[in-house]
Amino acid sequence: MPVTSDTPLLLARLRSALPAEALLTAPAELAAHSRDTAPFSACGTPAVVAVPRTAEQVEHIMRTAYELDVPVVPQGARTGLAGAANAVDGCVVLSTAALDRILSVDPANRLVRCEPGVTTRRLAEAVAGYGLAYPPDPASWETCTIGGNIATGAGGICCVKYGVTADYVLGLDLVLPDGRRMRTGRDTAKGVAGYDLTRLVVGSEGTLAVVVGATLALRPARPPALSLLAQFPTLTAAGDAVAAITRAGHTPSALELLDRATTRAIADLGAHPLVRPGSAATLIVESDGADPSADLTAMELLCKEAGSDHVATSATAEEAREIIEARRLVTPAIGAYMASRGGGLTAFIEDVAVPRSELPKLIGQIEDIAARHRLQVFTLGHAGDGNLHPTVVFDPSDPGELDRARTAYDDIMAAGLALGGTTTGEHGIGTLKREWLERELGPVSLELQRGLKRLFDPKNLLNPGKVVSA
Amino acid sequence: MPVTSDTPLLLARLRSALPAEALLTAPAELAAHSRDTAPFSACGTPAVVAVPRTAEQVEHIMRTAYELDVPVVPQGARTGLAGAANAVDGCVVLSTAALDRILSVDPANRLVRCEPGVTTRRLAEAVAGYGLAYPPDPASWETCTIGGNIATGAGGICCVKYGVTADYVLGLDLVLPDGRRMRTGRDTAKGVAGYDLTRLVVGSEGTLAVVVGATLALRPARPPALSLLAQFPTLTAAGDAVAAITRAGHTPSALELLDRATTRAIADLGAHPLVRPGSAATLIVESDGADPSADLTAMELLCKEAGSDHVATSATAEEAREIIEARRLVTPAIGAYMASRGGGLTAFIEDVAVPRSELPKLIGQIEDIAARHRLQVFTLGHAGDGNLHPTVVFDPSDPGELDRARTAYDDIMAAGLALGGTTTGEHGIGTLKREWLERELGPVSLELQRGLKRLFDPKNLLNPGKVVSA
Repeated sequence: MPVTSDTPLLLARLRSALPAEALLTAPAELAAHSRDTAPFSACGTPAVVAVPRTAEQVEHIMRTAYELDVPVVPQGARTGLAGAANAVDGCVVLSTAALDRILSVDPANRLVRCEPGVTTRRLAEAVAGYGLAYPPDPASWETCTIGGNIATGAGGICCVKYGVTADYVLGLDLVLPDGRRMRTGRDTAKGVAGYDLTRLVVGSEGTLAVVVGATLALRPARPPALSLLAQFPTLTAAGDAVAAITRAGHTPSALELLDRATTRAIADLGAHPLVRPGSAATLIVESDGADPSADLTAMELLCKEAGSDHVATSATAEEAREIIEARRLVTPAIGAYMASRGGGLTAFIEDVAVPRSELPKLIGQIEDIAARHRLQVFTLGHAGDGNLHPTVVFDPSDPGELDRARTAYDDIMAAGLALGGTTTGEHGIGTLKREWLERELGPVSLELQRGLKRLFDPKNLLNPGKVVSA
Repeated sequence: MPVTSDTPLLLARLRSALPAEALLTAPAELAAHSRDTAPFSACGTPAVVAVPRTAEQVEHIMRTAYELDVPVVPQGARTGLAGAANAVDGCVVLSTAALDRILSVDPANRLVRCEPGVTTRRLAEAVAGYGLAYPPDPASWETCTIGGNIATGAGGICCVKYGVTADYVLGLDLVLPDGRRMRTGRDTAKGVAGYDLTRLVVGSEGTLAVVVGATLALRPARPPALSLLAQFPTLTAAGDAVAAITRAGHTPSALELLDRATTRAIADLGAHPLVRPGSAATLIVESDGADPSADLTAMELLCKEAGSDHVATSATAEEAREIIEARRLVTPAIGAYMASRGGGLTAFIEDVAVPRSELPKLIGQIEDIAARHRLQVFTLGHAGDGNLHPTVVFDPSDPGELDRARTAYDDIMAAGLALGGTTTGEHGIGTLKREWLERELGPVSLELQRGLKRLFDPKNLLNPGKVVSA
């Protein structure tokens, strides 16, 4: 039901406060805004894509949809991986693309105020001009938006040292489902006045309110970093190295792990001089501490003691970038693998987190799951955070393989939960993990979470069908 | 109405699952548990003080109170400064004093699991044995409890670098007002499964649920620190020094400011060799960075450039402790001032936070307020966080002075809000600041906050009359 009988009324009401170019109705536009990048997740066709330029226009959209009982689905850059930005039939897609102003950078208070459609990259570059840093660096940071980062509680590589998006959100400017405007949080470093509505909205995947502005904390610019790459003959040895680095009190600014399949794919790509095939695991470690060279020398020794048979350490910023480049080659390497199989394959990026100490066990279990279901799985992860992204590659046109991919996905979630983990470290629930969320939360928490959704959105019009909503 | 007609029934029901020594009813015990340390705040007399030893006993207390419609007031060490732990007439005071086990320290995952009655000091010392640190250091850290810290979202001196209690709470084990048990959060470094109920409960001042267990994140042990003390002829000069330290990218582990009155009181005490009277402001700066000596040399220069006429820098850990001791002398110094006035005076410690850059302005306005109301006010604060604690000293037996103290308190809150701040940086709302909370939040947020309270506690039995509840 892409266009309901009320669509002409909806459009007429929206046009009363938004210019024509802010309302997209061409079929190609509707299709282009129907989903994010998660496979396995259902989506519908919107009645209209609204692209407001001001918070007042957002208020008008929300009031109108509320009065006409039309669902609203907020969208940033649609780089999400859980279907949280997927349209439902007949909805208004509310794109934040044109709410893209950086309102003020305040070096004295180390904060920035911006609108939700600013890309993470543009924000990071703008504050860098003031000698400041906005650290969260999700993989899609060049194109994803601050609003999307807030909605999903996005993480990234350097959050092992610097924390995730949630740690940087001081306050929010919101429009509620009925169109009312509200501020949460504060412009101060500390504050405990009332319940923390800011953190409630962060990670709520656009189901509680529409973010129209954010006050974000900043840090001093990150110092220059050095890095190392270490390869290990066994997963246990790589896990021992991570544990030893933790135990010795290091706080690396990246601590990334590639499994055997990912290591081989990068080696096969032939684009990186340091990565050798045949290893069970590759660790990439970065330090931007006061003396990164001494830090890395100490960590290199710990890697060797844990059994690494190949360590390369950078002496210059250039070499450090080359090492980190191995992490960036994961996506092209998996792409090359898929192309070598003749195309037609789909890659499904998973997201599961366990206590850091359980990481090698989880990787081993994922390798077993891949073998059992005869699937190629590439696992890479934020080892310092215990957060893994197994990428399952499968042929969606083969019903048997599609079924095995879905089962493997379930098995990976179950393995993560059984190890004391969570079904999502940083990608979110969206439509994809709703059943798993129920298993993870249990009935009492689920009841409260559904109550929270009803409190903010009694008509269930804002991003319905996502997280805990019907 | 200290003992209601239902008290015998309440006690009989409680005794069915709690041993006799866990239920205190002696008038002296009831009086001792009637309030925290906030003046100006009403309190009642409990029907009974329950001191459970297990979470199951807490469940029984909550179920019983829920069935009998009896209010429950959770209490930690009653060191709070906003009346959030004050009893209401006929309530059950639920003391967490005997829920004091440290359940496990997990160095591999840098976390600790404990019960709420553990004191902050005991927790910090226990994890120090593993080379780890639990940084939050509220002034009462030697006696206050982790449960109280979680309830108030407590801060402290080192949170300018290391963050507040909320930043360390990964997960909570809760008993809801109706006696049901629930877990929030996770044992993993990252996680975004569902709405963030953990952060909703942190800072909720015991109005949403009773904390019976917590999983807290830890950090590597803090490196040795050095410090400096700088005095300034004007407030503006001290503010300029704080701004210059921030602008230069320093992250001191303490950045404390004493106003003219506090500086003089410490000098008058004659117990500190470095603090000279006559200065408009004294800054105490600590660095525990990789090279604290270089750090402090740079910050010393910034203080001098800003106009400091007296800087003392520590070269050894011993000297560093001596400098920090000046901060610890604030309470004895104010006490000595009060004693010199013949006793009978009360000290009321305020808590207000503004954007860091507005700090000198707020201190100046507080000095004006003190002069206008002919009151002695000692202001000290966490300058790096923009968080001030003006201490108003007054004679409560003098009705005129009591009135002026109340008016000064209101004037200070109004000044903080007008400068873009919050009415509480770390002490909380309790009963004391309910009216100010309404002004700070505005009607839409207030309505949602009240809805949240109803969602968790539909009968309004858990800590009624605190934060936003009736």
